[in-house]
Amino acid sequence: MTASVTQPPSSSASYWLVGVDVGGTTVSTVLLDELLRPHGELTVATDLSSPDATLLSIVAAIQQTLALDADPSRSLAAIGLGIPGQQDTLRGIVRIAVNLHWYDYPLVERLVARFGVPCVIDNDVRVATLGVYRFDNPAGEQDLAYISVGTGLATGVILEGRLLRGRHGLAGEFGHMIVDPNGPPCNCGARGCLETLVSATAVVRRARELLALGMPSSLRTLNPLTARGVYDAAAAGDLPAQQIVDAVGTELARSLRSVVLAYDVDSVVLGGGVTRAGERYLRPIVAEWLRQQESSALARAVLRPEILRIADPTRNLGAWGAAALAAEALHPTEG
Amino acid sequence: MTASVTQPPSSSASYWLVGVDVGGTTVSTVLLDELLRPHGELTVATDLSSPDATLLSIVAAIQQTLALDADPSRSLAAIGLGIPGQQDTLRGIVRIAVNLHWYDYPLVERLVARFGVPCVIDNDVRVATLGVYRFDNPAGEQDLAYISVGTGLATGVILEGRLLRGRHGLAGEFGHMIVDPNGPPCNCGARGCLETLVSATAVVRRARELLALGMPSSLRTLNPLTARGVYDAAAAGDLPAQQIVDAVGTELARSLRSVVLAYDVDSVVLGGGVTRAGERYLRPIVAEWLRQQESSALARAVLRPEILRIADPTRNLGAWGAAALAAEALHPTEG
Repeated sequence: MTASVTQPPSSSASYWLVGVDVGGTTVSTVLLDELLRPHGELTVATDLSSPDATLLSIVAAIQQTLALDADPSRSLAAIGLGIPGQQDTLRGIVRIAVNLHWYDYPLVERLVARFGVPCVIDNDVRVATLGVYRFDNPAGEQDLAYISVGTGLATGVILEGRLLRGRHGLAGEFGHMIVDPNGPPCNCGARGCLETLVSATAVVRRARELLALGMPSSLRTLNPLTARGVYDAAAAGDLPAQQIVDAVGTELARSLRSVVLAYDVDSVVLGGGVTRAGERYLRPIVAEWLRQQESSALARAVLRPEILRIADPTRNLGAWGAAALAAEALHPTEG
Repeated sequence: MTASVTQPPSSSASYWLVGVDVGGTTVSTVLLDELLRPHGELTVATDLSSPDATLLSIVAAIQQTLALDADPSRSLAAIGLGIPGQQDTLRGIVRIAVNLHWYDYPLVERLVARFGVPCVIDNDVRVATLGVYRFDNPAGEQDLAYISVGTGLATGVILEGRLLRGRHGLAGEFGHMIVDPNGPPCNCGARGCLETLVSATAVVRRARELLALGMPSSLRTLNPLTARGVYDAAAAGDLPAQQIVDAVGTELARSLRSVVLAYDVDSVVLGGGVTRAGERYLRPIVAEWLRQQESSALARAVLRPEILRIADPTRNLGAWGAAALAAEALHPTEG
């Protein structure tokens, strides 16, 4: 439905693509030209006062993004958006985006009415995975998994250069793999899903639990208590924080083993605020992989630490990936 | 290297395809014509007296298979083989097949020298998955996972009608997903891999452990003690056997949840000797999925019991899949 709205520009034309990463807190955008070169980026607060107010804040962000470069030879050709939750990508409908209060919201129809160009949506983590594949992929890997660690944990997968979506758009929902049947309750209704043990939210919960036991820790002075704060405290030698970082790393290492065995990818990229701890985030994961290697030829073959890395923290790969999604909508064969 | 050996027959020609499933105990074959219609099947013991003796027993089985139908209008066009372990499918070399004592064994070269037609190999479970997709797929599913439960546990995956292989031919190695870090040691060197808890071998080990505790059980009378025997005893009301069947089903249900979330397939097919217990094999798995559904919208959406089934036990889908692999080698675009 989206591609028929306007004639797609010929591949030699000059035009703009806008990529939008819609989060529960902020809306981030990027303005790319037809060669996917950046001309501006923008981040504004998400207006959550009503579903339509959220739309208007996104529309305003797109308009402001277009105003970032006044080049009169270019006009808007397509918009791509990454939206949290479950999307009907074919019909352009946001099925369920809990944090945005959007349920069966006809986002693409509304945006097309406003901008008159093709608009495409997909799940935010999947869009960010496309961003990693297109813009943060120095070795040109054609098979990679991207793990986004935040409030929850979600995985996007590229196989042979193509985004894996699955029959219902749920492929890669590793955050809801049950790793401890007696573990903490998960938002999904199960117990001990991976994200209840290793997400940024889980890191904070683990810290609160340790503090409740009365342990001496510099974490008591943190306000607010954040996952990044726990990693910083661990680096500074705080023992309870180190305990949490090690436990999370070990659990994540086991689960990334499952990701590697599931897809046999050559690159596993971690992203999300807490991963900006960088090497300190990777170290306990690598330590567990090396422990597994000691006794296992299989582990030595597949759990090679060099396949692990942190996504480029200097740009919003969600917004960039959304712009790449828009480009694919214009030229599907390039996808 | 294989396709250049002879001119592939035109698609209107009549010819034979031979599919071979090579196991540590038996070699099973099927003779299909150009329309993939069966003309004969054969099973012989695998000769393990030496690597070359194994080859000769396979060559003999292929020759006997061709003799099953004397139609003079057809000649052999291609051979496909499913081999346990890790294969270099492109170079036609068996990398590691522990049970066959083949290490870097140039199987395709040897067979081409003998038969003068294209020969192709792949991992046995992957080949059986192709067999399920092509010959045991009444709904024509384009996305399915096949789980083979035997000495170990391995998974094959079809996504959008194509076999998922992965970068190193290891995609779908769910049997080595660590589900209990303190669990039994696995052949791979890790502890608590899924296959140490739910394979046919694991069922027998669990039974021995329970018997060692002195529990009264009809399992004591079984000689040999087999996984199928445990399922039969459970059906007859034996309490320790029921306990094992329930524990295995619960564990398998959790792991199949991971398979469904990883690939978002609409069909999960279980195969292998122990699954011939049929409904009794599926029941404890379904029971756990229904338990998960009680508290979880996600589980209600993705863990639908109707996506689970047992592979057709009446034909050797490994050999049939191998014949399909041979057909794909002749006409790659049909793959």
